[in-house]
Amino acid sequence: MARTLIINGTVVSPTGRQLIDVLIDGETVVAMYAPGQVEAQGVTADTVIDALGKYVIPGGIDVHTHMELPFGGTNASDTFETGSRAAAWGGVTTIVDFAVQRYGENVIDSLGEWHAKAAGECAIDYAFHQIVGGIDDEALKAMRYLTENEGVTSFKLFMAYPGVFYSDDGQILRAMQTAGDIGATIMMHAENGIAIDVLVGQAIARGETDPKYHSYTRPSLLEGEATHRAIILSQVAGNAPLYIVHVSASDALLEIAAARDAGRNVFAETCPQYLYMTLEETLAKPGFEGAKWVCSPPVRSAHDTHHHHADLWKGLRTNDIAIVSTDHCPFCMKDQKELGLGNFSKIPNGMGGVEHRMELLYQGVVNGELTLERWVETCCTTPARMFGMYPKKGIIAPGADADIVIWDPATQTRIGINDKHHMNIDHSSWEGYVIDGKVETVLSRGTVVIADDAYVGRKGHGQFVRRGLSQYLV
Amino acid sequence: MARTLIINGTVVSPTGRQLIDVLIDGETVVAMYAPGQVEAQGVTADTVIDALGKYVIPGGIDVHTHMELPFGGTNASDTFETGSRAAAWGGVTTIVDFAVQRYGENVIDSLGEWHAKAAGECAIDYAFHQIVGGIDDEALKAMRYLTENEGVTSFKLFMAYPGVFYSDDGQILRAMQTAGDIGATIMMHAENGIAIDVLVGQAIARGETDPKYHSYTRPSLLEGEATHRAIILSQVAGNAPLYIVHVSASDALLEIAAARDAGRNVFAETCPQYLYMTLEETLAKPGFEGAKWVCSPPVRSAHDTHHHHADLWKGLRTNDIAIVSTDHCPFCMKDQKELGLGNFSKIPNGMGGVEHRMELLYQGVVNGELTLERWVETCCTTPARMFGMYPKKGIIAPGADADIVIWDPATQTRIGINDKHHMNIDHSSWEGYVIDGKVETVLSRGTVVIADDAYVGRKGHGQFVRRGLSQYLV
Amino acid sequence: MARTLIINGTVVSPTGRQLIDVLIDGETVVAMYAPGQVEAQGVTADTVIDALGKYVIPGGIDVHTHMELPFGGTNASDTFETGSRAAAWGGVTTIVDFAVQRYGENVIDSLGEWHAKAAGECAIDYAFHQIVGGIDDEALKAMRYLTENEGVTSFKLFMAYPGVFYSDDGQILRAMQTAGDIGATIMMHAENGIAIDVLVGQAIARGETDPKYHSYTRPSLLEGEATHRAIILSQVAGNAPLYIVHVSASDALLEIAAARDAGRNVFAETCPQYLYMTLEETLAKPGFEGAKWVCSPPVRSAHDTHHHHADLWKGLRTNDIAIVSTDHCPFCMKDQKELGLGNFSKIPNGMGGVEHRMELLYQGVVNGELTLERWVETCCTTPARMFGMYPKKGIIAPGADADIVIWDPATQTRIGINDKHHMNIDHSSWEGYVIDGKVETVLSRGTVVIADDAYVGRKGHGQFVRRGLSQYLV
Amino acid sequence: MARTLIINGTVVSPTGRQLIDVLIDGETVVAMYAPGQVEAQGVTADTVIDALGKYVIPGGIDVHTHMELPFGGTNASDTFETGSRAAAWGGVTTIVDFAVQRYGENVIDSLGEWHAKAAGECAIDYAFHQIVGGIDDEALKAMRYLTENEGVTSFKLFMAYPGVFYSDDGQILRAMQTAGDIGATIMMHAENGIAIDVLVGQAIARGETDPKYHSYTRPSLLEGEATHRAIILSQVAGNAPLYIVHVSASDALLEIAAARDAGRNVFAETCPQYLYMTLEETLAKPGFEGAKWVCSPPVRSAHDTHHHHADLWKGLRTNDIAIVSTDHCPFCMKDQKELGLGNFSKIPNGMGGVEHRMELLYQGVVNGELTLERWVETCCTTPARMFGMYPKKGIIAPGADADIVIWDPATQTRIGINDKHHMNIDHSSWEGYVIDGKVETVLSRGTVVIADDAYVGRKGHGQFVRRGLSQYLV
Repeated sequence: MARTLIINGTVVSPTGRQLIDVLIDGETVVAMYAPGQVEAQGVTADTVIDALGKYVIPGGIDVHTHMELPFGGTNASDTFETGSRAAAWGGVTTIVDFAVQRYGENVIDSLGEWHAKAAGECAIDYAFHQIVGGIDDEALKAMRYLTENEGVTSFKLFMAYPGVFYSDDGQILRAMQTAGDIGATIMMHAENGIAIDVLVGQAIARGETDPKYHSYTRPSLLEGEATHRAIILSQVAGNAPLYIVHVSASDALLEIAAARDAGRNVFAETCPQYLYMTLEETLAKPGFEGAKWVCSPPVRSAHDTHHHHADLWKGLRTNDIAIVSTDHCPFCMKDQKELGLGNFSKIPNGMGGVEHRMELLYQGVVNGELTLERWVETCCTTPARMFGMYPKKGIIAPGADADIVIWDPATQTRIGINDKHHMNIDHSSWEGYVIDGKVETVLSRGTVVIADDAYVGRKGHGQFVRRGLSQYLV
Repeated sequence: MARTLIINGTVVSPTGRQLIDVLIDGETVVAMYAPGQVEAQGVTADTVIDALGKYVIPGGIDVHTHMELPFGGTNASDTFETGSRAAAWGGVTTIVDFAVQRYGENVIDSLGEWHAKAAGECAIDYAFHQIVGGIDDEALKAMRYLTENEGVTSFKLFMAYPGVFYSDDGQILRAMQTAGDIGATIMMHAENGIAIDVLVGQAIARGETDPKYHSYTRPSLLEGEATHRAIILSQVAGNAPLYIVHVSASDALLEIAAARDAGRNVFAETCPQYLYMTLEETLAKPGFEGAKWVCSPPVRSAHDTHHHHADLWKGLRTNDIAIVSTDHCPFCMKDQKELGLGNFSKIPNGMGGVEHRMELLYQGVVNGELTLERWVETCCTTPARMFGMYPKKGIIAPGADADIVIWDPATQTRIGINDKHHMNIDHSSWEGYVIDGKVETVLSRGTVVIADDAYVGRKGHGQFVRRGLSQYLV
Repeated sequence: MARTLIINGTVVSPTGRQLIDVLIDGETVVAMYAPGQVEAQGVTADTVIDALGKYVIPGGIDVHTHMELPFGGTNASDTFETGSRAAAWGGVTTIVDFAVQRYGENVIDSLGEWHAKAAGECAIDYAFHQIVGGIDDEALKAMRYLTENEGVTSFKLFMAYPGVFYSDDGQILRAMQTAGDIGATIMMHAENGIAIDVLVGQAIARGETDPKYHSYTRPSLLEGEATHRAIILSQVAGNAPLYIVHVSASDALLEIAAARDAGRNVFAETCPQYLYMTLEETLAKPGFEGAKWVCSPPVRSAHDTHHHHADLWKGLRTNDIAIVSTDHCPFCMKDQKELGLGNFSKIPNGMGGVEHRMELLYQGVVNGELTLERWVETCCTTPARMFGMYPKKGIIAPGADADIVIWDPATQTRIGINDKHHMNIDHSSWEGYVIDGKVETVLSRGTVVIADDAYVGRKGHGQFVRRGLSQYLV
Repeated sequence: MARTLIINGTVVSPTGRQLIDVLIDGETVVAMYAPGQVEAQGVTADTVIDALGKYVIPGGIDVHTHMELPFGGTNASDTFETGSRAAAWGGVTTIVDFAVQRYGENVIDSLGEWHAKAAGECAIDYAFHQIVGGIDDEALKAMRYLTENEGVTSFKLFMAYPGVFYSDDGQILRAMQTAGDIGATIMMHAENGIAIDVLVGQAIARGETDPKYHSYTRPSLLEGEATHRAIILSQVAGNAPLYIVHVSASDALLEIAAARDAGRNVFAETCPQYLYMTLEETLAKPGFEGAKWVCSPPVRSAHDTHHHHADLWKGLRTNDIAIVSTDHCPFCMKDQKELGLGNFSKIPNGMGGVEHRMELLYQGVVNGELTLERWVETCCTTPARMFGMYPKKGIIAPGADADIVIWDPATQTRIGINDKHHMNIDHSSWEGYVIDGKVETVLSRGTVVIADDAYVGRKGHGQFVRRGLSQYLV
């Protein structure tokens, strides 16, 4: 097996940064050395990467992607092949995607279906959460089976999208009871979809059909409400672990912070779009262009009572938000987003971002919003711990998978359809952003997949990761 | 220089645990290996310690001790020699003690005085915070000087003890402005001493002189109040870093949690006595025995409105309390505590505990109050980061000081004056406690100081640690 | 028309108490005099009532009764005749009952049905709220019609009882939008019935069929949750006035208090059972006896985290709870409550209390829980203002209806099936309670209906009260 | 004695409004009649005032005035004669002024001194609170004496003005204990004067001497802090009644609201300047003009994090603020305010407003900020109840003093030095304000003092009001 040495780099972990040399043998980190020890101990390798002046960080983990997701009469435009490759370009070495059961379908079958989509396709490692769109006795049994046998230990429910993914409060309660029993984690899309659908219908009836009404009809109050309700239901279910996905608004964050202050097992993620984008600069663009940014929950207004951006950055610092994911779910404008021309409610919901998360969050470090260590923690380490992949993933340590990113803080990255853009989308949601830093080299289980501005990996290198229970709990 | 290998142990960090072998050369960790690599790479050492079945953790750091402190007409009964040795027995490899300036004294002189007390005496490494009992222009200048030149970057003020250490709100504000300016940390003893002194005087006048009245006259409301006030003053001073010492009560914790939710630079520590002891089982013992547990803030009642123990454990989990220290400040009953016979307000305030913190907190792990990782984080890693000693201290990593504890989870520790007790006190505050675990071996900068139930270190091995600014901030 | 003078009494209003003589002419208070003025001005009357040493208060208003309500396959056991007579015995001169529309029924027809039940039957005045069990376009139109034309200006929705009265969040939102538009008030039964039904089904499946499981399966968390949700929905609907009925738990009160602190138009009532009764002393009685106290929300446990009784009394003092009503909805044990033998979920929900509210709340005055003035405010004046009947009702003032109660503070009232008990129920929920005070004389629109321990009124004296909009808002 | 009838007016009380005719005999309201009864009963009077289309309200009570107060080397420019006459012009029929004890002075003597200033001078009735600037054993005894014998039942302390009125936390605690014991009310000037003085000194040292720095150096954080501290001290003192004077900021209001939600005996007032004025439009005017608006706490900025105006109006609605007073303490620019030319800290603190409170708050009714009833409650009725003068004062009811204002809602009032302005000040703080309403007629104890735009009262008509304990508590 090939041996690789990464020397002279600054290894960053959630607790600090140090000059450490890293020895990889095959797929695994096998040793780490203080400066000078490689020479002193006569360590040799097939390949030596000099990371002088660079940060050496664990490969990014994006725990919220939707490759090839069927939604709104079309499919997300990135396949596992294209999407995982773009992820690699972005310093991501593991994605956790969602297998989808809809009401009436069999949970275990649906997982099989998703395995079939991903197997042999991925540039980097991948795992699955399971969406359970129809909670009944059989589905509850399947939750147990997947947790105990299939390495799938987290289950996503929706308080939105009635008739599609929606679970009512009774179904949610039952799923939470089961999760609490088996130690699995419930992931929640927390928006009050029943009330939202009334607002959407009223808007359409008034002729308010432009993309911006997508945001107006999904007020942050209804995200906060659903978040509160999910937290209470988890408490009724015996304090089952609850993970709120894609928090977009201060309203939700306040509920999460209160629950955590009270000692509840409540966790949360946000996504870069909620940290940077405003309604005014995206959805509200003239004509149909705003459709590019239609996702749920929506990007919020800069003129709200709450200062959502500032609050979410603060939540990231205080750990009320533990993780940053992307909710990567891209649709092209042509033929896809355009399904909603004349009716915003028909625009497929989602935005592409798996490639840019590490970059956008590093900009937060540059901007003084979070520390370098916290960047690694929220993007790499906590995702692994929260979803049962640590210490194989999420840390650079002897014995861990050699999923490593070498980050150059001295080079800029320009994002855009004609600049850095490797996702299968006909536009970039982040067009024109310039980041103070760059993904220089990416290793996935010891193999270099990105180097010298080129993708040098291969389809099928990525393996399925069987996950254990969350390691983030007492 | 001697090389030591610790093999087969489970290395624990704040983010997880792994089987890793650790190579020490001289005073430093120089390499860490995945299982099998020591053999594969032919690594040799002068000494090999087999840690099979044991936890290998960073040496404990106790950031709140008072060796030889003059107080109430006597001195704390542990010298730097006896106290630092007891610390080593307890798995502690660094203490941060307090140099004391009183009103009218020179700050820089007082630091010199404390250096003189400690130099050449300690079994393990030591550092200093500076108590500033009299804030004036000269003292403010000295704060800057110590931070920039002396490796002393944290300054303790008192809202209690009028006429002794007390600073008024104007003095506090000025010190916080200076701290904010230079990046230093203000440590606060937060009790409203002006109001407390009225209550104490009234109690004595009513003939309520037993030790238990020490607690009744220092209600938790007045700890909460002072904590709130310190937080607001730090905000007026421009959000200067504020560290609340020895939080004893839910009242204070609620203020800290609220400040942290609001994004303030507010941090806190608690001590084992506040996590385990109740007024009823300690201070309220018949006769004068309660004097053993007289410390400030006092141990709280089990019958309060608040559930202080449960809340403090919860605060430890949520990071609203970042650190556990001991406030080690021991006085013997004979000749010392007895100064307060017939008048509780004359009892020297303090309790000995530097030896038992790691043990008592590990029991929290066994009891399900916190994770193994969080134990290491609160007792070892965060203390180093909060007070500018990381990564030299607080982590097992290549390049770090080889301050390492090998912890045996399979053996019990019985605490008591005739059992494990190495502090220079004529009684044990923890008499009779039995812990499920044991400090087996302790290395300080590569040198074994505790092994085979014996102290094998030497006086003067410990060195002064020059500290930088807190690494715990954005 | 007959003239009545009430002399020498202490007239109590929400702001204070004074010796004032009251002159009634026909149905109306026509003048009020300072002591001595009746003689000085030579005022004469047909009847003179000497109220020396007594309180003279506005007649009680119970805004939450369910006479003859069809529920669970039977009807509430008090008719408008028996129930309104019992109310008079209890110092109540106006009740506001609920007309009931169920899904698929016509709202206006249902109001007509209830008019038919009450007309010519009542001993005292009565008004109606409208229950809207099926929100659709027609129902929303009817809300407007009733408000503008029928003197029915408040509409009750249910978040509980799926399949019976339940409205989903979309229906609630639409009703709130309409209410906000027309100035009407939404009354909300706030319990998460969808989740509760899961818990009930699980309990029954486990064989937990005794009455006490009624409380266990309706945890206060789910009352708090629904209360929070209703508040948020009212905010989404543009801050429409929201009145939470029968608050039973601290969880709900906390949500209400927070909303009110934030300036929301949120109001609440509680009932005597929630101020006095505990699960342990009622529902949990051996065998089936607990069925007597089955109502929703349920009576809470004395061993909860929250101190519900103390908190609710406090809420009454601070006006976070504005009104005390009874939710009078009686069922006999025989043939009615017994429907739930072997299955608590079949027990008709409800308790009788219209007769005892004034007495039980006066006991709160004696116990130091609220002032005499606040007793009058919560039981008489605010009900009139909140539901658009002031100043015709709710105050003793020139021009107001002569609905007056003379209250003897020096006599006790013993409640019980063989003591004071005039409701049509085969048991008393308040058996054995002894109150320090007594309803001595009751006048309804100038006519004495209770005097000398006898009912001297007549069926049909009571008239329908057309109500205006709430006068309790800015 | 003369009899006066006020007919056809709309009498307003805190609970509602009704057409009622009012008969006054001598100094007292002796009867009130429903429309038509005056004729029906043949009631006659010496004078008949037709109030058709007017509001008939209880005379205003201003519980916070400082006539002739010695402050900053000068005296407030209104004497009891000029100030009480201006009050009458403003629809005020009772003022409560402050007798002042300074450290070292005798409390009872100081009350005598203030009696001497006021006796025979006032146009309307007056009462006293007692400022206690030096709490010691003798002062505590005097508090008891005044409460039991002198009709002075409220005591004001200062957390600001060190060296002048300041009490430390121990003194405050002792005063609160005494107040709790005797049922008296503690009034608190809540600003952290110790910290403020540091900020003031620093500003002056930086050459920031203009009036606006008065506000910058008294940040609202320090008003909130002191408010919190006072609340906690009152809790330590056994929940003694605490009344926070002149709340200017959301920070303080939040503390008060939290205390009240928790059931504490905490009450508050605000003043018109804090409801209407901003720093930008007053203190920050160019040159020295801002000195006109120098008062403490200062007028707040429109650009603060908090929306102070909106929050204070909200607090008035929710009763977290119970009372509006003026803190009337006027100083002329010439010779008085000018003492602070070149040093804002030398500007005498205070503003004149006793004449305009009723007008300015009525404008709040017009603007939709509070109801007509709440206007009467906060300006007339609650002041009487809170400070032990009800039902003699604060309500129009048989037996009450005939302190009555006839308010014309159809006429405007223009405020300004050349418009309506009767206070002895050389400028108006409210210059240019135009109010939709007018004080038409004012009766003080049955005597008309303002009518037809003329003062028709006389010096010395006003009598001292001996007050009882607060009637506002359970």
